[in-house]
Amino acid sequence: MKKEHIIAKIRKLGEEIQSQVDANKNPHIIMPAKGLGNVNFDKDRLLLTLGDKKMKRTFLNVAHARKFMQTILIANLCRKLVESDKHASIREVYYQLKHTIDRTKENTFDGQEESDPVIEDLERALDILREQMNLTADRKGYLYGNIRIVDAGDTINCAKLGRGGYGIPSTVEDLEFAEVKADFALVIETAAMYERLVEEKFAKRNNAILVATQGQAARGVRRLIHRLSKEVGLPVYVFTDGDPYGYYIYSVIKMGSINLAYLSTELGTPGCKFIGMTMTDIERYGLEKVTEKLKDLDVKRIKEEMKYAWFQDKRWQLELKKMLKGGVRIEQQALANKSLEFVAKKYLPDKISRGEFLP
Amino acid sequence: MKKEHIIAKIRKLGEEIQSQVDANKNPHIIMPAKGLGNVNFDKDRLLLTLGDKKMKRTFLNVAHARKFMQTILIANLCRKLVESDKHASIREVYYQLKHTIDRTKENTFDGQEESDPVIEDLERALDILREQMNLTADRKGYLYGNIRIVDAGDTINCAKLGRGGYGIPSTVEDLEFAEVKADFALVIETAAMYERLVEEKFAKRNNAILVATQGQAARGVRRLIHRLSKEVGLPVYVFTDGDPYGYYIYSVIKMGSINLAYLSTELGTPGCKFIGMTMTDIERYGLEKVTEKLKDLDVKRIKEEMKYAWFQDKRWQLELKKMLKGGVRIEQQALANKSLEFVAKKYLPDKISRGEFLP
Repeated sequence: MKKEHIIAKIRKLGEEIQSQVDANKNPHIIMPAKGLGNVNFDKDRLLLTLGDKKMKRTFLNVAHARKFMQTILIANLCRKLVESDKHASIREVYYQLKHTIDRTKENTFDGQEESDPVIEDLERALDILREQMNLTADRKGYLYGNIRIVDAGDTINCAKLGRGGYGIPSTVEDLEFAEVKADFALVIETAAMYERLVEEKFAKRNNAILVATQGQAARGVRRLIHRLSKEVGLPVYVFTDGDPYGYYIYSVIKMGSINLAYLSTELGTPGCKFIGMTMTDIERYGLEKVTEKLKDLDVKRIKEEMKYAWFQDKRWQLELKKMLKGGVRIEQQALANKSLEFVAKKYLPDKISRGEFLP
Repeated sequence: MKKEHIIAKIRKLGEEIQSQVDANKNPHIIMPAKGLGNVNFDKDRLLLTLGDKKMKRTFLNVAHARKFMQTILIANLCRKLVESDKHASIREVYYQLKHTIDRTKENTFDGQEESDPVIEDLERALDILREQMNLTADRKGYLYGNIRIVDAGDTINCAKLGRGGYGIPSTVEDLEFAEVKADFALVIETAAMYERLVEEKFAKRNNAILVATQGQAARGVRRLIHRLSKEVGLPVYVFTDGDPYGYYIYSVIKMGSINLAYLSTELGTPGCKFIGMTMTDIERYGLEKVTEKLKDLDVKRIKEEMKYAWFQDKRWQLELKKMLKGGVRIEQQALANKSLEFVAKKYLPDKISRGEFLP
């Protein structure tokens, strides 16, 4: 989406409110409602999406006035940022806008926990990403492989950055893919497993791009995976720990999250597949000695996931049931128990050549 | 330290134990004792250092036998890693070595919380860093600026990596500085402030190298700062939040930590200086409205720091007292309240040109 288009969307919001004021009407903003009540699982597109429910934020309403004021302040700051090609972190947004309102003792914002949700409101109201409004968060995740990325005027060969690869920005909107030579992208939960695969030359030997999420994938990482799938057409395989958190990381990459369901079409990668770790791996590779016992919280989480619409496929139900029955979880790094090379030389190549994925 | 030298040190440990066994003696390992009781603050060198106290770990001692066995297992694995030019994460070390001992129900390790401290013991026993034994941990921190780093055969221009810069590895032993064109290094606590300064072209305008620690500096980041100071001779300025955690981050970069006092000479940068945020900044720049109230835990931490030998300088005592008296802390990103450019165009250049640092 072009800069002018973003600015126009924000301006339109301001102009509508202005015209409401001019007409002596109670100013209001309409946006899609959030929360589980307005989230659907679209089985055809394999995405979590927002429903049709709307919410209305009006100025002359004691419960809304403060948030209304905050929404306008943030919209105005975003417009200025986009106009001047500047970025601001969501923490800076809070500090930039924090002040005591004239002739009152009221602060515009009393903490970042007030400004962050308003940014999400604005995303829903305008149907644009915070990244498109030049807002940033902390960088997280790495990418390695035969791809040239143009970032702020620099062309970066992501296979020539030492062992670490390219640090994925929180905002990947402006990145361009100059050249991509790869057969697939492998998304990896832990940075240590990513470094293992770099050291074992997995990317070179298998013509792969490696992406480390470092736990739950940040928005920038999800957006980048989405773009690699959609724009470049790369198959995407996701490799996480064999536990409810790993499986959830996969599901968020694939079809989005409940909280940010309105972003699924921009951040989700419905075509991606799950390569491991599975509970079946434990038996097949004799990893019984390097599993970890489930804790109460793990059990609770597994039972929740078994009910999710997007884990109803019988292959997922089987894995989750096995996990409950066995009472154990397994980390991807437990594969080191076979040998350091095992994951790169045997485990992953075998699964890929056999097409052994979970949906 | 050369590869052969590391291997020789590990082999020597093994040979000594072998000769003790051959002589029918109780095998033992001697290493410097850890803990506060054996840590000194060296006022001349401005470093936390280990004292002369030793501890002896013997095999035929019920309280020592398990750790003795674990120490030997890890030493053996490290030797193999160095010999084969392989790296392993400290999590992989745990998984690689975890097994049930023959004809027993005893596991070699029951969790990473058992293997990590043994790695530190081995560092003290052999006087070599875990990084020199090819052990890695998660990557953390970024570097941006006019420096070319040779990493695993790739020469990386750290000013040509887009907005993000170079992701600092956990092990920087093998890095070479091919070319450094900078007048100083600025070490920054938050990634968001680092990205602000990159966007404002602070590095280019001030001929600076920027290093983001992302909170408490990881060992790799501390080692890199140490090397920039010692090998390249760059002055180092540290820029943290104005709170007890920020001040502690500074002190660890400067003179080391209590836990890892035996590493201070390798990781510390005694010559570095503190540029901000100070409590004095709040008054001078009129930032009263963007401070945060101290919590009980903050107050406790400030009182502890006031007693530390390395915060006895009266300028530090003054800052800590002011913090207690004012009852507030301030984050570096609060400077955004003046304007997004303020920190890059005014705050930092003014302090540097006036030489306004804390020791």
